[in-house]
Amino acid sequence: MMTEINRQIVLASRPVGEPKSTDFEMIESVVRGPSAGEVLCRSIYLSLDPYMRGRMSAAKSYAKPIEINDVMEGGVVGEVLSSNFPGIQVGDFVLGAGGWQEYFTLPGASLRIVDPGRSPISTALGVLGMPGLTAYAGLLKIGKPESGETVVVAAASGAVGSAVGQIAKINEARAVGIAGSPEKCRFVVDELGFDDCINHRDPDFKEHLQNACPDGIDIYFENVGGPVFRAVLPLLNQFARIPVCGVISHYNDTALPEGPDLTPLILRSALVKRLTIRGFLVFDFVDEEPEALEHLTQWVLDGRLKYHEDFVSGLEGAPEAFIGLLKGKNFGKLVVEVSPSDKV
Amino acid sequence: MMTEINRQIVLASRPVGEPKSTDFEMIESVVRGPSAGEVLCRSIYLSLDPYMRGRMSAAKSYAKPIEINDVMEGGVVGEVLSSNFPGIQVGDFVLGAGGWQEYFTLPGASLRIVDPGRSPISTALGVLGMPGLTAYAGLLKIGKPESGETVVVAAASGAVGSAVGQIAKINEARAVGIAGSPEKCRFVVDELGFDDCINHRDPDFKEHLQNACPDGIDIYFENVGGPVFRAVLPLLNQFARIPVCGVISHYNDTALPEGPDLTPLILRSALVKRLTIRGFLVFDFVDEEPEALEHLTQWVLDGRLKYHEDFVSGLEGAPEAFIGLLKGKNFGKLVVEVSPSDKV
Repeated sequence: MMTEINRQIVLASRPVGEPKSTDFEMIESVVRGPSAGEVLCRSIYLSLDPYMRGRMSAAKSYAKPIEINDVMEGGVVGEVLSSNFPGIQVGDFVLGAGGWQEYFTLPGASLRIVDPGRSPISTALGVLGMPGLTAYAGLLKIGKPESGETVVVAAASGAVGSAVGQIAKINEARAVGIAGSPEKCRFVVDELGFDDCINHRDPDFKEHLQNACPDGIDIYFENVGGPVFRAVLPLLNQFARIPVCGVISHYNDTALPEGPDLTPLILRSALVKRLTIRGFLVFDFVDEEPEALEHLTQWVLDGRLKYHEDFVSGLEGAPEAFIGLLKGKNFGKLVVEVSPSDKV
Repeated sequence: MMTEINRQIVLASRPVGEPKSTDFEMIESVVRGPSAGEVLCRSIYLSLDPYMRGRMSAAKSYAKPIEINDVMEGGVVGEVLSSNFPGIQVGDFVLGAGGWQEYFTLPGASLRIVDPGRSPISTALGVLGMPGLTAYAGLLKIGKPESGETVVVAAASGAVGSAVGQIAKINEARAVGIAGSPEKCRFVVDELGFDDCINHRDPDFKEHLQNACPDGIDIYFENVGGPVFRAVLPLLNQFARIPVCGVISHYNDTALPEGPDLTPLILRSALVKRLTIRGFLVFDFVDEEPEALEHLTQWVLDGRLKYHEDFVSGLEGAPEAFIGLLKGKNFGKLVVEVSPSDKV
């Protein structure tokens, strides 16, 4: 085992604007066995998420940037090959910050055991993982939907957005999605049960959004920024809440967009409508994670919370899939199948 | 009494940009006696406040615009001349929405009795009135300062800002003001006891602000918008709160400012720093008004909450004083002495 080759994808260069395949590099190293308290795992599923674009930049953020030549970060569900940590056994499935590589070695204390008997293990990266918990916290702890209110969520077919709208429905709110194609919109309405979904690439997007929200917008779950934010702003009701979860449309920006500067409009709207605009990260709600996971799991088991996974085969496909993610090319939660699992 | 002349200032035309004196007109009407349940008062002090600029515009806001030829709105402390309302007697001082006129007749139920034995009656328009209550609610109910945190307040020598900083100090926070002249800044520090105050007209404003906030900014009480907001944004700490009370630097805008558009920067900052940007009006906290007024009054009586009033003599001076208010020409709470009071 200790002489096995570990294929890894490292950050080769910091992207300027849209990442290119040459910003990533596949290297090979030797698998490192576990030290005291550590666990060695074989990566099965690697999660690809928009936040990773931030980690590729040197700009100051809530987390440190990935250094050049370091392995790309990412959540992974792996199978335990060797464990020096009590409570984690060979053959267990675990969730951890494994990164873009075929094997990872981490402190056992940083891993969470995933029960394959309850739900497919890939869901620990999606609806029952960081994206699902993000949707839960942002919508219920910040947005706080009340019965009959209108919740609009951008990137509605994505990992977070798809959960937001369905949790809104579970809470008796009206759910209106915004997505990037007619197919995605159909899926959001027909499969996920949103009340409506609007294609933001449609030339009449603003008008369609207004028609879909006859009583205005009480909660706008922000995943994208850009023109979608501008279209939402005038439709917000008094005391509307805007949990800011992401601004994917800006992650590849190299400069601020041209004017006019909307800052006065945002501040004046905040004042006149008494808006609450609040940014958050899933880690801010770690105390509520067990409660959230319990609810999410139950909703999935009951069939009230559906999810769609977009699988990519092989670690080598990760860079291209990630580049596509930032352009909305994925359909649902994007997962790289790094190696097959018999048990899944 | 009933044939007395009532001089009134009405809205003659809707200003485009900065209000001009010709947007106001002084007219004369006959004083109207009180109907059942009403009270007739002689205006003593008229409050001038930035929000009135919004009422002069036809643009949709939280309150209806003033109609052309209608009396300008405004809070007034008056002396009761005639009362058809139980509980309000001739000779009482009352606070009400009297408007820009020498006499006003209003339902007694809309008036609040002002006790001249406790504090000068003019304070019912300032530190113990709407501005003081605004400062209290915005800082304590939204900002929620903790001991040792840094509170930055714009328009720090104004009616709201001066109270915000002092209430911050009472709550053991560091108070940094921003004002528009060296004299105002000296007053804010020397008289009001702020820890520091920065002149936003100084060319090195951004650098001075940064130096005044060595531990960053935890609460930014927003009264102005514009360049001050832009200077504050990069200094905000994680989990900073921004109660949005006003954006006076934009009230005379006729269009959005030129670019670049800072929207992505605002949203990204909100996300990365987990900011809360929340607009509010004093009316949103009406349930907490008695508690707030009790605290504010006690602090004034204890000498812990100081205030400065900028008196203008005669109703005819109101338009010019109001135009100056929007440019920061006032120094402290701007009050028009409409008619003298023996008791004050």
